[in-house]
Amino acid sequence: MTPPVPTVLVLDADPPPRLGRLTGRARIVHTDAAGLAARLPAADALLVWDFTSHAVREAWPGEGPRPRWVHTASAGVDHLMCPELAASDTVVTNARGIFDQPIAEYVAALVLALAKDLPGTLGYQRERTWQHREARRVAGTRACVVGSGPIGRAVVRTLKALGVTTALVGRVPRTGIHGPGDLDRLMSRADWVIAAAPLTEQTYRMFDAHRFGVMQPSASFINVGRGQLVDEDALVTALARRWIAAAALDVFATEPLPADSPLWRVPGLLVSPHMSGDTVGWRDELGVQFVELYERWAAGRSLVNVVDKKRGYVPGH
Amino acid sequence: MTPPVPTVLVLDADPPPRLGRLTGRARIVHTDAAGLAARLPAADALLVWDFTSHAVREAWPGEGPRPRWVHTASAGVDHLMCPELAASDTVVTNARGIFDQPIAEYVAALVLALAKDLPGTLGYQRERTWQHREARRVAGTRACVVGSGPIGRAVVRTLKALGVTTALVGRVPRTGIHGPGDLDRLMSRADWVIAAAPLTEQTYRMFDAHRFGVMQPSASFINVGRGQLVDEDALVTALARRWIAAAALDVFATEPLPADSPLWRVPGLLVSPHMSGDTVGWRDELGVQFVELYERWAAGRSLVNVVDKKRGYVPGH
Repeated sequence: MTPPVPTVLVLDADPPPRLGRLTGRARIVHTDAAGLAARLPAADALLVWDFTSHAVREAWPGEGPRPRWVHTASAGVDHLMCPELAASDTVVTNARGIFDQPIAEYVAALVLALAKDLPGTLGYQRERTWQHREARRVAGTRACVVGSGPIGRAVVRTLKALGVTTALVGRVPRTGIHGPGDLDRLMSRADWVIAAAPLTEQTYRMFDAHRFGVMQPSASFINVGRGQLVDEDALVTALARRWIAAAALDVFATEPLPADSPLWRVPGLLVSPHMSGDTVGWRDELGVQFVELYERWAAGRSLVNVVDKKRGYVPGH
Repeated sequence: MTPPVPTVLVLDADPPPRLGRLTGRARIVHTDAAGLAARLPAADALLVWDFTSHAVREAWPGEGPRPRWVHTASAGVDHLMCPELAASDTVVTNARGIFDQPIAEYVAALVLALAKDLPGTLGYQRERTWQHREARRVAGTRACVVGSGPIGRAVVRTLKALGVTTALVGRVPRTGIHGPGDLDRLMSRADWVIAAAPLTEQTYRMFDAHRFGVMQPSASFINVGRGQLVDEDALVTALARRWIAAAALDVFATEPLPADSPLWRVPGLLVSPHMSGDTVGWRDELGVQFVELYERWAAGRSLVNVVDKKRGYVPGH
């Protein structure tokens, strides 16, 4: 007797590539946020392809039938976690690994752009003005990277390759990783503070007025994690009062950043549209990753990239 | 009997730092371009501090008394070389070593900025527009670096550290360095073509319509060498016709670039004001380097950084 083909519910705005490889092995059902609650009870697995949606949090069933596995095509899981999902025996996996190197390169691009004042250069070019300035050397500077997962570690590797002295901060101190107790001291000596942590109760608005206050006036702050890691008002104040020299945000408390947000026009603040990890081919890679996980799951083998739902990220190395 | 204190003539617009260390050991005489010809015959050494000036070429005495040593606070010597100086027994030294790492970082900043489309991001920020795009990965791309001196080699080291596959092209093929005969082939496969060569008769306008024509439409051209390495009109045409994707010029045939130059507004062209090697403290480093060379020279020891005046650069490793 052939076992029934599992139903994979896909929450998407545009369909994921590569799922055709599952033809005959999975019944793929697409839904938008509005249809999610009605379709969740009949689904065996849920693929959260539209990682900008918070619909899972709102639609997740309490006690009733529900998917046994949820995969999100993102590194962070903050957009889908809710107490009912955390308490259930449903397994949650993420896209660990896909974004590490692209985000590390993006951070290097921002560090170098700020050190060499490329924003200033582009501004002078618009004004047809030849204005020589002295740039900063990146080699020999210090970075404090907050978030000791694969993204933070890739950032450390890439900055080290450029001659930057790095310190990595995680939730729990261990070899090569500082604990939260060292954060203020490390931030106070850093030329670059880089936020690459997951959004959890512990990290919510961890970068606040106090933390910007301990930074050096010559230092810059870069966020490629989640917008809610930062008290955005405190960052604007820190830039206005020259507590810090510059900042670059790729993520925001509200995304897309509304056209009327004051953040677009803060002197010294570079705004980019949550693109640090998204390089040509990334959607293909995410699709292939899901297919590989599906094959493990359907065969009854253990999944990888399993999120600790209480902590809100994939723990350990 | 005390030997006479040598006279060091300094061609400058603003005085070099650190020369105070030579008090009592050198007679420092400052001059501008207009006074150079009159003062050259009485000088024992000439420090070309204002490396933007071409005054030495015009003022150099033919057969008469002249400095025995000329030092330029720059890597290139094209602005001061003339047949009379090349034929004379006057020793010419340059600032080899000071600019290598800063220029390598600047090239890395440009490569990463183009791969991540930071110019586009800054443009969208000005328009308060959230426009997600897919960036390119830098790791795994190919660079062709033209110029096998210490600057080109530092560029290769830095790009390699970012995972870029590099090929280095010099005047003479040797281990690890391609000769000019390989240039077209290497350029045709490169994602990044980086000009870091000295300006000589052989390199004058070496990047012309033919060379831009062999590049890939997705590739970018970066010049941190000298403006005259490039046929600027051909580059503008190559960008307009999409023969290449983008370019970044830090050096120009005419510097400062005039406000009415069309180069300021070429789509896909990033213009910066000859600042790639100039990091905070660079003038101090140049001053210290001259003092150290002076001490060797005054003691009758052999100089380092000696330019091959026929070739127009410091040869070999």
